[in-house]
Amino acid sequence: MLELSIIKHLNKLKQKKFRKEEKEFVVEGIKGVMDALNSEMEVILVIVDGKLRDEKEFEKIILKAEKKNVQVAFCGRNDIDKIKNTETFPGCLAVIDQLEILADQLDDGPIICLDAIKDPGNLGTIIRTADWFGFKNILLSEDTVDVYNPKTVRSTMGSIFHLKIAKTSNLLKTLEKLKKESEYKIYSLDLKGESHKKMKYEEKVVYIFGSESQGIREGLEKIVDKSYNIAGQGQAESLNVAISAAIVMANLSS
Amino acid sequence: MLELSIIKHLNKLKQKKFRKEEKEFVVEGIKGVMDALNSEMEVILVIVDGKLRDEKEFEKIILKAEKKNVQVAFCGRNDIDKIKNTETFPGCLAVIDQLEILADQLDDGPIICLDAIKDPGNLGTIIRTADWFGFKNILLSEDTVDVYNPKTVRSTMGSIFHLKIAKTSNLLKTLEKLKKESEYKIYSLDLKGESHKKMKYEEKVVYIFGSESQGIREGLEKIVDKSYNIAGQGQAESLNVAISAAIVMANLSS
Repeated sequence: MLELSIIKHLNKLKQKKFRKEEKEFVVEGIKGVMDALNSEMEVILVIVDGKLRDEKEFEKIILKAEKKNVQVAFCGRNDIDKIKNTETFPGCLAVIDQLEILADQLDDGPIICLDAIKDPGNLGTIIRTADWFGFKNILLSEDTVDVYNPKTVRSTMGSIFHLKIAKTSNLLKTLEKLKKESEYKIYSLDLKGESHKKMKYEEKVVYIFGSESQGIREGLEKIVDKSYNIAGQGQAESLNVAISAAIVMANLSS
Repeated sequence: MLELSIIKHLNKLKQKKFRKEEKEFVVEGIKGVMDALNSEMEVILVIVDGKLRDEKEFEKIILKAEKKNVQVAFCGRNDIDKIKNTETFPGCLAVIDQLEILADQLDDGPIICLDAIKDPGNLGTIIRTADWFGFKNILLSEDTVDVYNPKTVRSTMGSIFHLKIAKTSNLLKTLEKLKKESEYKIYSLDLKGESHKKMKYEEKVVYIFGSESQGIREGLEKIVDKSYNIAGQGQAESLNVAISAAIVMANLSS
């Protein structure tokens, strides 16, 4: 049985407001919890379904947590409905400190920048895809959905722990600074421009992807060095942004 | 105010069982309803929010429906909560007859085949992406999620009305028949094989995409002519299937 205070705390973390206040978030599932424990992020608490504690995968998690001096608590069947984020509780979860990274703390190399992405699943999928293709840096605009939203965390499939993810409170200013002080160029995927196949991989480039219907926001255009688009030939009006970003990243990574 | 019988009918259609029995499905939103009215599918009923009936976009829908002798009903504020499929009702919906297409009724040209895709959003996104790149034919395995699931319909963004979508009750047999009788070749995206960049666009090819963790199912391999994969270089374990399919379709369409 979990202490009531833990249950209350976990439930608060389902709300963005409290995640922001507490600077914490939750990841569920064996892979996510293990990736968190193997990352540089600070894991505060691991919760394991008491009935599964002797199963191999969960044993590994418990051992790993103990090695890192992370508190482990066991939950009973009655707790699960109160704490789970998904329909079927995958047997474990971790509470983790949010890493607050600014744009100038990103690693060297290209930056995948997301402008006004509203769907948590899309954001998570883009992070997962960026990880697949070996990109290290993500930059989120001020109005992009919370990266610590449980749906986003889930759809990153652990990749949230592999990349550096910075959030800016003013995308335009941040991009101007990256151009001026760090000599980055800015390439955007837009509704017009050259074929995305001509877009090159370069170390000092910020690749911007905007929300699917509008491309990037007005005002950003003036600092964009080159625009590209993905040519279509059917009747669909647009591509989903996670799809566009993936097509571009796949093309860049070869 | 809607008749009670219509409200009951719409609610039944939220369940797969009744969609199958009634051979009908629902699309919501201006674009979806208009795409349906412009397609060859039979629209049975259009419902418009009575408060919006004089707005231009909705007027167009009403006119178009009347031209096609489709019944139009108006709903009141109290009806909306009872009928909507999404958090915010987008002002209109249509009830449409399901088109039952078999593999041999597909158009000439390549076929995008989906094996055991379980997530409705992924299925819808793949249909939308296929439409963008000009593919005309989709073939769904027996255990792929219902294409008329409201989430799938929504995420196709109208493309469900642009493509021919066939469902088979035995994928292996259908593929064997396509090979033997129609001289199709079978290419699969898998966890092994050559780079997807070597995959060619050909008129007589079935391109198979399986569920993300396992690739295509056991048993299918023996009829696959060539396997391909998408090389990664980061730490992610896999790509989302809608992402993989998009990367391949983008590559084929040039």
